[in-house]
Amino acid sequence: MSAYAQLETRFRRLSALSGALAMLEWDQAVMMPAGGAEARADQMATLGLLRHESLIAPEMGELLAAADGIKGELDPWQQANLREMRRLWRQAGALPGRLVEARAYAAAKAEMAWRRARAESDFPLLAPHLETLLDLTREAAAAKAAAFAIPPYDALLDDYEPGARAADLDVIFADLAAFLPDFLARALERQAARGAPLPLPGPFGQAAQQELGRRLMTALGFDFTHGRLDVSLHPFTGGVPDDVRITTRYDEADFTRALMGVLHETGHALYERGLPAAWRRQPVGEPRGMVLHESQSLLMEMQVCRGPAFLTFAAPLLREAFHGEGPAWTEANLFAHYRRVARGLIRVDADEVSYPLHIVLRYRLERALLSGDLAVRDLPAAWGEGMRGLLGVAPPDDRSGCLQDIHWPGGAFGYFPTYTLGALAAAQFYAAARAQDGTIEPGIAAGDFRPLLAWLRAKVHGLGSFKTTGEVIAQATDAPLGTAAFKAHLTARYG
Amino acid sequence: MSAYAQLETRFRRLSALSGALAMLEWDQAVMMPAGGAEARADQMATLGLLRHESLIAPEMGELLAAADGIKGELDPWQQANLREMRRLWRQAGALPGRLVEARAYAAAKAEMAWRRARAESDFPLLAPHLETLLDLTREAAAAKAAAFAIPPYDALLDDYEPGARAADLDVIFADLAAFLPDFLARALERQAARGAPLPLPGPFGQAAQQELGRRLMTALGFDFTHGRLDVSLHPFTGGVPDDVRITTRYDEADFTRALMGVLHETGHALYERGLPAAWRRQPVGEPRGMVLHESQSLLMEMQVCRGPAFLTFAAPLLREAFHGEGPAWTEANLFAHYRRVARGLIRVDADEVSYPLHIVLRYRLERALLSGDLAVRDLPAAWGEGMRGLLGVAPPDDRSGCLQDIHWPGGAFGYFPTYTLGALAAAQFYAAARAQDGTIEPGIAAGDFRPLLAWLRAKVHGLGSFKTTGEVIAQATDAPLGTAAFKAHLTARYG
Repeated sequence: MSAYAQLETRFRRLSALSGALAMLEWDQAVMMPAGGAEARADQMATLGLLRHESLIAPEMGELLAAADGIKGELDPWQQANLREMRRLWRQAGALPGRLVEARAYAAAKAEMAWRRARAESDFPLLAPHLETLLDLTREAAAAKAAAFAIPPYDALLDDYEPGARAADLDVIFADLAAFLPDFLARALERQAARGAPLPLPGPFGQAAQQELGRRLMTALGFDFTHGRLDVSLHPFTGGVPDDVRITTRYDEADFTRALMGVLHETGHALYERGLPAAWRRQPVGEPRGMVLHESQSLLMEMQVCRGPAFLTFAAPLLREAFHGEGPAWTEANLFAHYRRVARGLIRVDADEVSYPLHIVLRYRLERALLSGDLAVRDLPAAWGEGMRGLLGVAPPDDRSGCLQDIHWPGGAFGYFPTYTLGALAAAQFYAAARAQDGTIEPGIAAGDFRPLLAWLRAKVHGLGSFKTTGEVIAQATDAPLGTAAFKAHLTARYG
Repeated sequence: MSAYAQLETRFRRLSALSGALAMLEWDQAVMMPAGGAEARADQMATLGLLRHESLIAPEMGELLAAADGIKGELDPWQQANLREMRRLWRQAGALPGRLVEARAYAAAKAEMAWRRARAESDFPLLAPHLETLLDLTREAAAAKAAAFAIPPYDALLDDYEPGARAADLDVIFADLAAFLPDFLARALERQAARGAPLPLPGPFGQAAQQELGRRLMTALGFDFTHGRLDVSLHPFTGGVPDDVRITTRYDEADFTRALMGVLHETGHALYERGLPAAWRRQPVGEPRGMVLHESQSLLMEMQVCRGPAFLTFAAPLLREAFHGEGPAWTEANLFAHYRRVARGLIRVDADEVSYPLHIVLRYRLERALLSGDLAVRDLPAAWGEGMRGLLGVAPPDDRSGCLQDIHWPGGAFGYFPTYTLGALAAAQFYAAARAQDGTIEPGIAAGDFRPLLAWLRAKVHGLGSFKTTGEVIAQATDAPLGTAAFKAHLTARYG
């Protein structure tokens, strides 16, 4: 067996390990009783360590070198696969196994503490766990930064978006932090002038919400023989490409959030399912990174499903699902609901105008936490101050402040920026898609999502990790990633 | 760190791997959409292989030898832990990793084929998968038999019940095959003379059945912060001691089967939860084997919950759950339902008199399949013939014949005998428990299961793998495992 073929076998096993981990994570969030937490932390830390040890096994370096020697015999996808294998190997080699295991345990403990802390709005319950986790994260960032000769924060970003650089983020976030506060203020004025939409009277039973969600998911292209929809405290997309697990949470007084939540996660799920089937369980068949992943959920939710074409299709289904009648249930009034902007406290409930400001806050705070400029105990105060500065509101308690997100307690530092880069990419993709295929938007209005899905499959999903994020965006949209399409979209919808 | 301490670390990781596998198995049976099967097979085969490779790593033998050298410094539980480590290491060393992986894949494929074959009552759909699996099982049995100098079938038994020997089974099964057919015939005559119990009119909604099940599980001692109750095609107990997952299946026309099914699995769950907490994730903290495991489920179901004392407690709860009124819902009529015997086709629905005959059949057939005396294609005919001989009935189709059980398609050859050994042990344990503690049965009648659970915790659960099955039984009941208590129980209830 050639060195390359041996590598494929090894990485197939690594992918199976990662898949097992993904299922355990899903179960932890959706099914596990609280008393199972310690055993689960053991299971996940052990699998993570085994993955790490398999990656850094001495033969791995030898096989990579041998495969490089016969690179000319490989086809372009195999070459790209070899490149991705090397990238993962280098990443793992930068970290000692001890640190990988310790971070996994610390994250599991912090996440369990966060569940209690959030429920009780009690930040000190989380603080010591977060400090431990920050120490270990700093150590990991420093080790990887030294190995790759990049700044420590870039080393963290790289875990979620390969090649991302804080220097580029600074430019984009400065642009958005300058543009959005004024834009938001003007959008709020126009919204006030239009008057509030007619209220949508509830209650909306969870079963009816779920059935509607499943119906719309199916219309968008979600295949329930390869996935599930369940309930969790913090909605997410998990599982593996052939078994995609999405979750949501329901509010029986207001269906609008869970519905868009489901459609958002469906965007993630369609990306996973659309990854190149011929490269399942190989590195080149993996999602490129979190920027493209978030672009797919935000394209579906923000660009498509909160827009008039989708609501033309969906309004009758909503009326049917909830026995809605009268002027509150018109497409125009539903659009008015979904176009509302607000100076809100909660990121996941934020409208697309204010959302990037939530991200700018988290970006600034996580950089300050990591650099040591901000102490963990001062996080709640810094959060309040940042919210006032960027959004003009401050949380009354930590539950609706710095305890709202699972990311940091889960060990994900450097993740938040991908949401906003994803939002920019989503706007750019959708503008390009409509320009290139005039049947996409009429299709959506008629409930036919095949033209949109075909474009996404060809330009994004089916490429896996064959190209870089920058290449995928540039080739699909004829432009590098920037803020122009996003601003144009906001101006068209809210301006 | 001493060699022994290093071994504890290694076995803690192995236990985490096994725990991860247990969760993936549960998910496969309860949650996974059909399209996830291939990816799941990859995940499970990979984890199984990693477990195997960790066990047979060269340092493991060195550490075991070094720990043996300082055995005198270890306390009795540590010494037993070391003994169990060595047993697992020897077991793994007998099999090549290639074979472990191949069996896991073959079992995953055969199990998926079985699901279709059973639904369509189409044995040829399963047959080729079963042949492959049998070949691999024979190969594994031969390798282990050679390493341990035991017969190949004993090598398979040993996977489920350490130290079990077919020579002993032959004696017990000959005894039961001689006693039970006549006893069953007489019990049927007496039952006919008594007349049929009054029918219990349905339907019984799944939600009400589930709520009653949860209520009784809680009374028995099941802790829902450390476990779940769900639905699956084939009821089972899975998960890990701190997160025990039991399943059942509901029939809205008849609550009686699901109810006893839930109480049966609760017996398994209480054993898992009662394993010695100080030895979690170490070999000596594991269940001793499937004989004790099955003894705990059968003690709960057959000895306790189908008996008059339990029904005294449960009858009012059943009436409340299903709005039952009148003479059909008396404790006596419920007992008459639960004491019914029949010449049935389905093992999991069999009464306790005929059940061992189902096992004798499977024992004979799996030995014939493994030895090659019976070809896979001839299994349906041999099944029919065996059923006629032992039970006097034959299945009209393979769904209610050789396709009814998941065990063989799942790769479990040598498992079935443990059910009947477990039934014998259950009778022996319960007779001893009542003799030793006069508060047990009055407690059950009053809904207080603490005396029973305390006895089981002290005599069985809390011992983990500290002693052998034979030692546990002999010390708890003052007698070696035999058929006497079981026959006495049957005679008291049906004679």
